[in-house]
Amino acid sequence: MPEQLPGHRPTLEAVAERAGVSRATASRVVNGGDGVRAHLVEKVREAVLELGYVPNPAARTLVTRRTGAVAVIIAEPEIRIFSDPFFSRQIRGISKELTAHDTQLVLLLVEDRGDYDRIERYLAGGHVDGALAFSLHTDDPLPAITRRVGMPTVYGGRPGWTAGSGEHGGIAYVDADNRGGAREAVRHLLDRGRRRIAHIAGPLDQTSAVDRLDGYRDVLLDADPALIAEGDFTATGGAEAMAALLERCPDLDAVFAANDLMATGALRVLRERGLAVPADVALVGFDDAELVAETADPPLTTVRQDIEGMGRLMAQLLLRTLNREQGDRAVPASVVTPTALVRRGSS
Amino acid sequence: MPEQLPGHRPTLEAVAERAGVSRATASRVVNGGDGVRAHLVEKVREAVLELGYVPNPAARTLVTRRTGAVAVIIAEPEIRIFSDPFFSRQIRGISKELTAHDTQLVLLLVEDRGDYDRIERYLAGGHVDGALAFSLHTDDPLPAITRRVGMPTVYGGRPGWTAGSGEHGGIAYVDADNRGGAREAVRHLLDRGRRRIAHIAGPLDQTSAVDRLDGYRDVLLDADPALIAEGDFTATGGAEAMAALLERCPDLDAVFAANDLMATGALRVLRERGLAVPADVALVGFDDAELVAETADPPLTTVRQDIEGMGRLMAQLLLRTLNREQGDRAVPASVVTPTALVRRGSS
Repeated sequence: MPEQLPGHRPTLEAVAERAGVSRATASRVVNGGDGVRAHLVEKVREAVLELGYVPNPAARTLVTRRTGAVAVIIAEPEIRIFSDPFFSRQIRGISKELTAHDTQLVLLLVEDRGDYDRIERYLAGGHVDGALAFSLHTDDPLPAITRRVGMPTVYGGRPGWTAGSGEHGGIAYVDADNRGGAREAVRHLLDRGRRRIAHIAGPLDQTSAVDRLDGYRDVLLDADPALIAEGDFTATGGAEAMAALLERCPDLDAVFAANDLMATGALRVLRERGLAVPADVALVGFDDAELVAETADPPLTTVRQDIEGMGRLMAQLLLRTLNREQGDRAVPASVVTPTALVRRGSS
Repeated sequence: MPEQLPGHRPTLEAVAERAGVSRATASRVVNGGDGVRAHLVEKVREAVLELGYVPNPAARTLVTRRTGAVAVIIAEPEIRIFSDPFFSRQIRGISKELTAHDTQLVLLLVEDRGDYDRIERYLAGGHVDGALAFSLHTDDPLPAITRRVGMPTVYGGRPGWTAGSGEHGGIAYVDADNRGGAREAVRHLLDRGRRRIAHIAGPLDQTSAVDRLDGYRDVLLDADPALIAEGDFTATGGAEAMAALLERCPDLDAVFAANDLMATGALRVLRERGLAVPADVALVGFDDAELVAETADPPLTTVRQDIEGMGRLMAQLLLRTLNREQGDRAVPASVVTPTALVRRGSS
């Protein structure tokens, strides 16, 4: 049974007395439980309002075994989280959804591998009800951790980790149609008459990068391998990949970069080399990240994904999992959201 | 007493037996408590190593009443936290220090006032041992909350809140010498021969903005009030303030902006009006925020504060407070770190 805080706050006993019900019944109503008849629920709610009763949340946790908090874990160093608007936008979506359900967002930073021991302890310590994890790499220890501590988790991005690769079946995730979006980007460049289309891939230990590369290859079945360079989803990495591509293939006439930040890095290198965009080299990005694609000069043609919406979906999926009663129908395990080409000046 | 996880992990009982001590003694050693004789401590440690004993952290929490986690609360909407490099830099400093002490950083976002009820519940729920709070506004509810739930808290920035204004005495905080830094910036502009020096202030419900304005006034005792415009620490706010200043005082020949982001907004407006920086108008910022001051065109003269170091200091101060035993000497309540003018092309 919940303990009330000492002092002048109205107690649950006072609520029960005013409503003319038992303390157990009052507790069940206050803590959102079922199995109380409607007219008694009504009486307890009236008493709560009249007395200005505020439930003790620590006590509520004891009854519901819920903390009302959800961890968000981004498997990237802090410097990337703060420099790539993708992350802030996804966090915004998650934050809106959790706030709408009065759930506290708890952001855990992962600077390096050593941090995972501490994160496992925190997750095992019962401080959150579930976790949202994104930007995982194939060798990420996080899936094994959440399994070990039995933490309900929804992932951002298609699972591709190698540890326990046979166990992706029941995993809930939200992803964009990366492969379809990449196909559309490359087809658009073909439509613009480009024939030597290069690809700056993301880090290929992430499924989003793999899927976008696959989409590129779906359209350009016999693509010259020299036209593909691997970046790391940062502007600096995009610049380095662009320089390597120009070295290898000075005749390239288009670039599809696997995200907008890498496209801005590529844009800088093209400008430094005196190549005009789009006249000499057409350029397409991916994300339609705010303050990046639209503000580039020229503005970037890009593949838009609904980043904020994906964050909301992740949070919804997790909350539905947490609120699911035994015997309820299964929660959909994954959602793939559509992408759309946004045409701007760079192509 | 700690409970051990079921299964094949070695138990605390096994450690105690191997070491030839009582379970209570073994528990005290494992959980870092005092009052165990040195040779017994040694025996228990040997047994831990031999058996490969791993303490159950939830159980350790029960014994030490510590969670090993610290909340970081930034009293700004997520969009500002992710767009102003000041915040990521301060978080980086905090993160490094907490990681060095095996303490989990838990970032709580505050989107609007309604979120504070939930944050109070989370802090009251015993999920963190202490809190670091920064970028507070004078009417912030956070100080009252941390007092109410008895949460040890260190603030970033001099306290200036109006609620309980007589109670700032015992509050631990870390701040930069905002007033001294501002004085140096303005004196530098005077040295460059400027005579109509404007100030773009930060939001005056924050002490950092108030202190920088006071520093400006310390040097320009009879400053024309028309030369002062209030911004909001964002680039957009800086641009709006610059436009207002040029409207009122078209003869201004220098601007001291209370942070680098506002200086970049001012720079954009000056360029749009055809005014050369520094030839027509000299410009000085504040922060020396990475990827802002140095990359501006021209690079910004600015007042550097050791943002990352301030984050580390906040974390150190909190950890020392948490680890303090009854009767220990008092922990220093506040630290003010020096600032330094960095001269670049804009002045």
